[in-house]
Amino acid sequence: MDIGIIGGSGYTGGELMRLLAGHPEAHVVAVTSRSRKGQQVGDTHTHLRRIYDLSFEDLSAEEVASRSDVVFTAVPHGTAMQVVPSLLDAGVKIIDFSADYRLRTEVFEKVYKIKHTDPREAVYGIPELHPEVREQSFVANPGCYPTGASLAAAPLASAGLIELAVFDSKSGISGAGAEPTGVSHYPNMAENIQAYKLTSHRHRAEIAQELSRLDPDLKKISFTPHVIPSVRGILTTAHIFVKEELSEEEIGEIYGNFYGDKPFIRLVKGIPMLYSVRGSNFCDIGFEVEKGSNRIVIISAIDNLVKGASGQAIQNMNLMFGLDEKTGLWMPGFAP
Amino acid sequence: MDIGIIGGSGYTGGELMRLLAGHPEAHVVAVTSRSRKGQQVGDTHTHLRRIYDLSFEDLSAEEVASRSDVVFTAVPHGTAMQVVPSLLDAGVKIIDFSADYRLRTEVFEKVYKIKHTDPREAVYGIPELHPEVREQSFVANPGCYPTGASLAAAPLASAGLIELAVFDSKSGISGAGAEPTGVSHYPNMAENIQAYKLTSHRHRAEIAQELSRLDPDLKKISFTPHVIPSVRGILTTAHIFVKEELSEEEIGEIYGNFYGDKPFIRLVKGIPMLYSVRGSNFCDIGFEVEKGSNRIVIISAIDNLVKGASGQAIQNMNLMFGLDEKTGLWMPGFAP
Amino acid sequence: MDIGIIGGSGYTGGELMRLLAGHPEAHVVAVTSRSRKGQQVGDTHTHLRRIYDLSFEDLSAEEVASRSDVVFTAVPHGTAMQVVPSLLDAGVKIIDFSADYRLRTEVFEKVYKIKHTDPREAVYGIPELHPEVREQSFVANPGCYPTGASLAAAPLASAGLIELAVFDSKSGISGAGAEPTGVSHYPNMAENIQAYKLTSHRHRAEIAQELSRLDPDLKKISFTPHVIPSVRGILTTAHIFVKEELSEEEIGEIYGNFYGDKPFIRLVKGIPMLYSVRGSNFCDIGFEVEKGSNRIVIISAIDNLVKGASGQAIQNMNLMFGLDEKTGLWMPGFAP
Amino acid sequence: MDIGIIGGSGYTGGELMRLLAGHPEAHVVAVTSRSRKGQQVGDTHTHLRRIYDLSFEDLSAEEVASRSDVVFTAVPHGTAMQVVPSLLDAGVKIIDFSADYRLRTEVFEKVYKIKHTDPREAVYGIPELHPEVREQSFVANPGCYPTGASLAAAPLASAGLIELAVFDSKSGISGAGAEPTGVSHYPNMAENIQAYKLTSHRHRAEIAQELSRLDPDLKKISFTPHVIPSVRGILTTAHIFVKEELSEEEIGEIYGNFYGDKPFIRLVKGIPMLYSVRGSNFCDIGFEVEKGSNRIVIISAIDNLVKGASGQAIQNMNLMFGLDEKTGLWMPGFAP
Repeated sequence: MDIGIIGGSGYTGGELMRLLAGHPEAHVVAVTSRSRKGQQVGDTHTHLRRIYDLSFEDLSAEEVASRSDVVFTAVPHGTAMQVVPSLLDAGVKIIDFSADYRLRTEVFEKVYKIKHTDPREAVYGIPELHPEVREQSFVANPGCYPTGASLAAAPLASAGLIELAVFDSKSGISGAGAEPTGVSHYPNMAENIQAYKLTSHRHRAEIAQELSRLDPDLKKISFTPHVIPSVRGILTTAHIFVKEELSEEEIGEIYGNFYGDKPFIRLVKGIPMLYSVRGSNFCDIGFEVEKGSNRIVIISAIDNLVKGASGQAIQNMNLMFGLDEKTGLWMPGFAP
Repeated sequence: MDIGIIGGSGYTGGELMRLLAGHPEAHVVAVTSRSRKGQQVGDTHTHLRRIYDLSFEDLSAEEVASRSDVVFTAVPHGTAMQVVPSLLDAGVKIIDFSADYRLRTEVFEKVYKIKHTDPREAVYGIPELHPEVREQSFVANPGCYPTGASLAAAPLASAGLIELAVFDSKSGISGAGAEPTGVSHYPNMAENIQAYKLTSHRHRAEIAQELSRLDPDLKKISFTPHVIPSVRGILTTAHIFVKEELSEEEIGEIYGNFYGDKPFIRLVKGIPMLYSVRGSNFCDIGFEVEKGSNRIVIISAIDNLVKGASGQAIQNMNLMFGLDEKTGLWMPGFAP
Repeated sequence: MDIGIIGGSGYTGGELMRLLAGHPEAHVVAVTSRSRKGQQVGDTHTHLRRIYDLSFEDLSAEEVASRSDVVFTAVPHGTAMQVVPSLLDAGVKIIDFSADYRLRTEVFEKVYKIKHTDPREAVYGIPELHPEVREQSFVANPGCYPTGASLAAAPLASAGLIELAVFDSKSGISGAGAEPTGVSHYPNMAENIQAYKLTSHRHRAEIAQELSRLDPDLKKISFTPHVIPSVRGILTTAHIFVKEELSEEEIGEIYGNFYGDKPFIRLVKGIPMLYSVRGSNFCDIGFEVEKGSNRIVIISAIDNLVKGASGQAIQNMNLMFGLDEKTGLWMPGFAP
Repeated sequence: MDIGIIGGSGYTGGELMRLLAGHPEAHVVAVTSRSRKGQQVGDTHTHLRRIYDLSFEDLSAEEVASRSDVVFTAVPHGTAMQVVPSLLDAGVKIIDFSADYRLRTEVFEKVYKIKHTDPREAVYGIPELHPEVREQSFVANPGCYPTGASLAAAPLASAGLIELAVFDSKSGISGAGAEPTGVSHYPNMAENIQAYKLTSHRHRAEIAQELSRLDPDLKKISFTPHVIPSVRGILTTAHIFVKEELSEEEIGEIYGNFYGDKPFIRLVKGIPMLYSVRGSNFCDIGFEVEKGSNRIVIISAIDNLVKGASGQAIQNMNLMFGLDEKTGLWMPGFAP
């Protein structure tokens, strides 16, 4: 498969290339960046030096499509909708990292306050929840927080058991991108933790869409994100109040049945942590039931740049091309 | 005031001495440590070198009391109850860092699974919630998590408004003490976050006791702690569901009235963070109201070793001796 | 003493205010910042909230001088020389944080590639090496690296013993200032270490000036700086080759005699570390002699924002006003 | 190739398995650990869960050899010499991580203060300096610091140009192993840097042996290690004083000729950093010449657990079996 990446200078693009370097079927043929046109990829992504002998180009979507079987679009929200139509016209497969096609159009316009110029259906690319990704040609790659949160709660939502779900998520700062900001300034982030958008983060809409798809009655969904002094990872603490008390065994069975055959979901004894998933496409899930209460605490751990972005994108690509979803992704995490 | 510290080799003892070094009325006269008997305090607490010319001693409670006006007991849970009675007999004032006297006896025995050998009333030393600390001779210094959580929610609890409270707390690793463990091992903690005791941390009992004291009808209280890669601080994200929708102004007024004259509570615009309180006795509190919902997210930030332990202990000491509570504590945080 | 700070929005200004908050004789009366004019100091330096009720002002040097007994100038290199003359004319004492007056004029112009518009003598403000600071009205506050390096090697230089000195320094990233940059971007700095200006850092000139003042024959001085994933501190590893082999006892005696009565120099058994000096004005020094060789490794540890900047500035201020140099600075470090 | 690992519960063993998971020719058949006998490898190395379905066993060297084509011995210094003879007798290839066979016997006994019970020649396994690794059956895998230091200076040593070399090395704390200690305790390591064994680290002997092999006249070699708040990596700052002044071009040519065809040595413009090599087997090298002086500063960056340990071991294994040295190792680093 010949692969094009539109917008390759950020963390998502770099991580795509890191992972694709070990993919037996993939060959990156074009990476665009307007500002770094002509520079070696390894000058920006210094860890890719000598692995890639490739330069950033300033190419139109059509030019990228003409060289590629599949194109990853890693461009800002609102920009993808300007690029996707001509890629689709060119007949390539597309995996879009932006939010443009993740939500129903009217929800998107409300949440992102942007008029959508290309309203269109796309599969929401969490393969464990959307097996219909297989053989698709256009997938909206999910947000990082929604991936962790949805995977944590999906089995209970699917069983119609959730009364109220409070997602308290902790993300590494790489989720904020490669551009320096006040929040990412080392003296501000080290030894700190920063809650933000306490009640109004845009990813809440994705979580709600996914979970209410599984349980149309489920409305009470809260989400609060934090950044922690860590580069990668999202730990989601899902405080779930269920409609009836459930035992550990019952919940274990629900999760086991739901995820039993999914290679990238590891149901763990004990409490998941970023340490175990860093660098890998795994999502670790564990839980504990509060005695004498209808509260369950479910923890999910992912690497935000892998299962929360570029790894999941490759998983989607594999399925879109009829490959085993593990192809090129069956690697351990990076620890210590 | 002549001050004795029983158990001075840990972080709480070291922080007491750090803070007391600048207290105009305090003079540390005895610090005990069995294992470091005869060693200079500055050999263990290297930041105190030259500030203190004092050695650890292996002294009985009676010997410490005989030299002191007030004794801080920084000993493990279950040990304080063996030390406190003789200190009280000796007529000194006591501030106890252990959990032994924080809870009603029957609750203590259930939560800590220890038979209490000295059931006795002590004031629970959050001065903002317990003005009766003033002129007391025996105060149970609160746990770090309960300090952050109780201060975040107390005004709403006091107004009888809380339906359900979910406290999701993030602590620096210093809360786990000065002894190396697997969790505190740098390669395990860096770039990680570790949730633990998802539904069963013992500090939940303190939070519940404090809040139900303010609102006897409030029962639905959940608490989940995490350690983050930070040395100090506790950020508490309080997901509060109230009985009726409240506006930002109403909540601002409730908090303003409740804490208006409290010097160490800073109600901030924006979202509190550890950065601003590190090293100081301040508790910063901020909040946001979810639109069209009965959910409020309240964030409190404290330094776990100061307002969550030794600073609050000195604040209590000041009040017990009739001093201004700010004495020796009116210092800025440590940033960047 | 009424104190003015010209350029108060950076780390140096914030740290000055943090330290001066506990100084019994000092009163900050004016803090300037053009860009933050009218804003509360505590909005920028959030750790100073409620400690200072003071706003940034946009004032001329003359206006600041008219209110102050002493003015700290925390402005960029090249800017101080435009401010200092009128401050001197106004008769206030001045402590300048810039490099403008640290070096002999011809050296300054060569190293900083700026034409000096106000060539003038100033005392170089490392009080342990320049007792003539006392009663001065104008002091050039030293660079952070030169403070650590000069204090590490001064006793041996003074004894004329050094053949060759290689200073390998490791600094916290706060030394690079409060403005976000690529280097200070958390994902770039965490889990990394960045050497820079391997042979050409401008602070080398200050180190050379200081050491050759003590030993005119000493020419072989090398300096290489690094930033480490730490907010504060400078650890200097001084690889010193001496003219003749010296025993540990001999060196201990040389350092003891040289620094015996200096309150802020702690000669430690064992190896100094940032942990012990963080937040304080101490400089810890330790060393080891290589067996059968003329090499000595000397380690000094300082907090770059305290002894390397604002603390040393206050120490200078104390001496300039005839106070004990410890006034307001005799506080322990901040650990853990 | 069937692979046995003796001592697989530490970081070196875990990293071997992480890397071997992607090696097309390797199959791990036995991993020993006395203390974790019977436990799944993924319970200890949680990032390896589901990648390996393998349990630790308590096996003799003979038993491991009987199943394996090659055995990695990751056991303490002094223990390897008890295991290696019977492995050699069994006819398997061996790569030993301990120091037991790295040094000439008399040097080993002096430095490690252990009587050697199996004096024997082994190739010192830095393949870039020891092409004779190819087709060997017994290789002593080098220390992490010596790998970084020797690679930094070897071209100049080989050219007979070095007068004096001062190696100032900064290592991540994972080099100290998986067992918690006071130094690795998060509150001690965070925001700190710890120099240690200022003049007497045992790795100096390896560096000296390697460099004096290349230049028998080179005697003046100093080495001082530090641990920094980072999990992985070693940055070596080599302060090299050469016998005659050399231009940047001349040095560039010397390094280019020496390492031109070595796939894992990347000669970089600019200054190497841990960021670029983390997780990979690359050693990045850069340098700067001090103007008007005979001093050159050379920086090398490696991942201590990869090129400094397990990656280099696999590189050695590849060569010992006649494979391309890049096999299974040609992967990018892990960034951000």
